[in-house]
Order: sequence, then structure tokens, then C-alpha cells
Amino acid sequence: MLREDVTDAIRAAVFAELAAVGFSRMSIEGIARRAGVGKTAVYRRWKSKLSLVVDVVGAVAVQGLPAPDTGSLYGDVRALLEVASHALRHPVASQVIPDLLVEAVRHPEIADTLKAALLDSQQGVVAQIVQAAAGRGELPADTDPDRALDLVLGPLYWRLVVVRTEPPRGYLDDLARATVAALTA
Amino acid sequence: MLREDVTDAIRAAVFAELAAVGFSRMSIEGIARRAGVGKTAVYRRWKSKLSLVVDVVGAVAVQGLPAPDTGSLYGDVRALLEVASHALRHPVASQVIPDLLVEAVRHPEIADTLKAALLDSQQGVVAQIVQAAAGRGELPADTDPDRALDLVLGPLYWRLVVVRTEPPRGYLDDLARATVAALTA
Repeated sequence: MLREDVTDAIRAAVFAELAAVGFSRMSIEGIARRAGVGKTAVYRRWKSKLSLVVDVVGAVAVQGLPAPDTGSLYGDVRALLEVASHALRHPVASQVIPDLLVEAVRHPEIADTLKAALLDSQQGVVAQIVQAAAGRGELPADTDPDRALDLVLGPLYWRLVVVRTEPPRGYLDDLARATVAALTA
Repeated sequence: MLREDVTDAIRAAVFAELAAVGFSRMSIEGIARRAGVGKTAVYRRWKSKLSLVVDVVGAVAVQGLPAPDTGSLYGDVRALLEVASHALRHPVASQVIPDLLVEAVRHPEIADTLKAALLDSQQGVVAQIVQAAAGRGELPADTDPDRALDLVLGPLYWRLVVVRTEPPRGYLDDLARATVAALTA
């Protein structure tokens, strides 16, 4: 394998191992085996399991997310819920994120990486949605973007990641409508 | 120690170990050591770590939660948010629940126990709040209690367990107001 291919194989193996066995049970040996490389190939690049996971998960953050721009608060919230719904239903995300949230309590490096990879991009998107809505007069200019993020993503996260029961047909339309009402209350 | 005292010490040790090291790293040895009993005292009562955790966490479910009855939808939602906020800020709950949610993906017994211990009681409380509000004409009679639970607890759970930043002063009042708007949208 080329050097870049080895690195890519290790990165892919980290996500697969995180989803399959979780951070605490995951080992460098298991990652190397899944990637089809030797343990030394991993240790040459990363000094520990923690630094490997922080680096690999952190790299996802760079991609960022474009903010929807549909011309209405309802449209933007509905579009964001669609993207978030796909992301939270992805088997890797739905197992890796809660697992790393647990580890984040014990490892500040993981907390910082998760914050950068998940929250900062979502906060940026919601802040743009709120700003656009304020510009159209749909929301007050002093709307708190953190509170907006809680109201937009909280119910969907709770349903898909905590409760884990399939929402009824039309759920995202309904949730977008309820969220707009909450934001403008 | 009396036989019941041993059982109580083991139960307390399970929660402490879950919070300190998490389910996957937790061992019967560690639980026994923390409880000040021998390993055989644990194995005499429970056949495995999994059955021990399922039994101990499941016992919490029996206690249940009384539904608030303040006479208004806003008052009931605000009261529930107060209780949930205290529960979710408790260090044991804030580490044990996310940890067990992760394990629930791999162990159906944990999923069932968590559902009984956490969701069923919360669902029962929200269903009673919704029913009382419908009786007063504050909500339509066909309000979906599962959707109501998502809207009531989702934003608070997201903020306190996922984002983990301190909400501003007056957050619960504001959240209750926003939630009532979402429920009645």
C-alpha cells in the first residue's frame, strides 16, 4: 500500500472499530487488523488510541456544513432537520457519537474534539439560519443562537438517539413547524 | 453485615462504579471491592455483570415519578423541566445514562431496562400532563404524547447532556414557554 493509502485504511478502520466495539474496548491491534496493516504502521503515525481517535474524528470537523438558504425560517429549519436526521440515523454516527460523549467526561481531549467536530459546525449553521431569519424580520435580532440550537436539534436527537423509536410519517415537517413556533414564542 | 446490607452495599457500589469507570471497564471485582464484600457475595446474587446492572438500574424504575398537577400546561411543563434538570445534572445520572445508552446498542437487555427505568416513567408523566391539558382545552385531544415528550425533554437533554454548557439564568422558564408554543403549534 502507498503511505497515504495506509493512513486512509487506518482512518476508516478507526470508525469501523468505534462503531463495532466502542472506544473503551477498541485496541490498536484491532484497528491494525481491520486496516490490514501492522501495529507499527499505526504507532508510527499516532502515539496512542486516544490521539488517533481525536485526530480522526477531528478531521471530520474541517469539512463543515453549508447552511441552508431557502428564504424562510421554516424552510431552513426543515432542511437542517433533514440533514441531521440522515446523520443521526447513520449507524456509525448513532453509535460513535454517544460512545465518545461518554468518553468525553473522562478525556478532555475527546470533549474538545467532539465539540469542534459536532457542535461548532451545527452552531455555525443555526447561527446563520437565525441571522437570516432576523434579517427578514422572522426572529428578533437578539435571538440567542445557543437556545435556538437546543430547540432545533434537541427533540430530534432525543427521539433518534435516546428513545430510538421510529417517528411517524411527516414527523420532520411537524417538528419544523413546532420548532418555528418555539423559536418565535 | 446483614444479608440485606450486603445487597444494598452492592447496589450502591454498582452505581458508583458505573459513574467512575463505565459499564465496559467495570468488573465484579471492582464492585465487590467498593462494596467491601467478597466476589462470591456478588456471584451468589447475580450471575454476571450484565444481569447485575440490569437488575440494579431496573429497580429505579419501580419508584416512578408523580406527574405535576399545577393547573396549567405551562406550570406542568415548567415543573417537569425542574425535576428533569436536577436529575440530568446529577453526576451519576449524567455519566451512567449516556454510558448505558451506548451499551444498549449491543445488549438488548440493557435497552429494555433503560426503557423501563427512564422512558416509561417520563412517558407516563408527559402523557398525564398532555391529558390534563387536553381536558382543560389547552391541547387538542389527539395530541401525540411521544411527540410531546420529544418537545419537552429533547432541548434540555441536548443542552445538559450533549452540549454540556451552563444555560443562562431563566433558561427553564424560557424553555417552558417555548415548549408550550411548540406543543400548541
